[in-house]
Amino acid sequence: MATVGNSTNIFWQESPIGRLERQKLLNQKGCVVWITGLSGSGKSTLAFSVNKELYSRGKLSYILDGDNLRHGLNKNLCFSAEDRTENIRRVGEVAKLFADAGLICIASLISPYRKDRDACRAMLPDSNFIEARLLVDVFMNMPLELCEARDPKGLYKLARAGKIKGFTGIDDPYEPPLNCEIEIKQKDGVCPTPNAMAGQVVSYLEEEGYLHF
Amino acid sequence: MATVGNSTNIFWQESPIGRLERQKLLNQKGCVVWITGLSGSGKSTLAFSVNKELYSRGKLSYILDGDNLRHGLNKNLCFSAEDRTENIRRVGEVAKLFADAGLICIASLISPYRKDRDACRAMLPDSNFIEARLLVDVFMNMPLELCEARDPKGLYKLARAGKIKGFTGIDDPYEPPLNCEIEIKQKDGVCPTPNAMAGQVVSYLEEEGYLHF
Repeated sequence: MATVGNSTNIFWQESPIGRLERQKLLNQKGCVVWITGLSGSGKSTLAFSVNKELYSRGKLSYILDGDNLRHGLNKNLCFSAEDRTENIRRVGEVAKLFADAGLICIASLISPYRKDRDACRAMLPDSNFIEARLLVDVFMNMPLELCEARDPKGLYKLARAGKIKGFTGIDDPYEPPLNCEIEIKQKDGVCPTPNAMAGQVVSYLEEEGYLHF
Repeated sequence: MATVGNSTNIFWQESPIGRLERQKLLNQKGCVVWITGLSGSGKSTLAFSVNKELYSRGKLSYILDGDNLRHGLNKNLCFSAEDRTENIRRVGEVAKLFADAGLICIASLISPYRKDRDACRAMLPDSNFIEARLLVDVFMNMPLELCEARDPKGLYKLARAGKIKGFTGIDDPYEPPLNCEIEIKQKDGVCPTPNAMAGQVVSYLEEEGYLHF
């Protein structure tokens, strides 16, 4: 029995069917692939491509999309620094549950602040019962100019016109990762195709042993 | 683009690999089995037994335990009426994600207030692309006297001594479901065994078509 956060009298219940059993059933290892980057950098495109490629190999993955979660779990949060932190904390906690369930969880969020991403990494420690780490950070390293030229949602235009305040890259900072497992970037000024980007991630997962039990 | 809750400029991203594809991969249908009842009524025992029985049939299920989630996702919530509501809302939203991922999600929470459970039911509507409903409510209908006599965590004793305030069944109400898919109760004063209780739930899931695609 313990006091946890704001809750008292909380017990931990351990189910006899645990992560190992679920991983055996799925013949894969649960983990979190965390995609961070500017709006318009291609996070969703990469998430969809990885999801599709894993499915074609019979692997179960699930996308936690930052925007989609703001329709549900995080709909009581706004874009203040405090709420961004809570947003990312909740996504990290849910991603952890999905990894525990045995899924390859693909979290796709701008997640601009290093301290918030570090907090997620801290809550997803290297596991001591699988050889691979739980969190795979993917940095969509695309120049702001490119993202702004793409502007797929028209948000940069609104931000430049001052109609959106605190927009990442314009009047709110994006802090690039200091270390990440995978970096997606242009080569000779050319962006990799969605398939090539997905291939980079899936090859990593394969080499690190996530795609079989 | 929409304003959703406290968030503005939110898009919805639809992945090409959706629930149907995941259900096909798993050969089951995603849903939420929501177990409600007093502390000590046997919710966790039932959740573990259902989890185990489903696993033995090669089905992927995952338990969202109210107490366990207060170690993570919900650790910034206490037991005030407002925070209980937010607690259940978050669990409902996460359960919905797991059902969408194709899993049989077993949510095990006291969830004492009818309006909070109704809100979860409202957010998990009968789907229009699978024949079965998304939410299966299970009511652990055990008498307070029995739960208090069991008192597996010693909490009733603390509540009677006034050391825990707002304890469900003692000085905070439990509102039984008016309609639920499954009711677990004593027969001639005898509690069903864990296996018998799990059988009741798993048979229901089988009959309703959740255990194959």
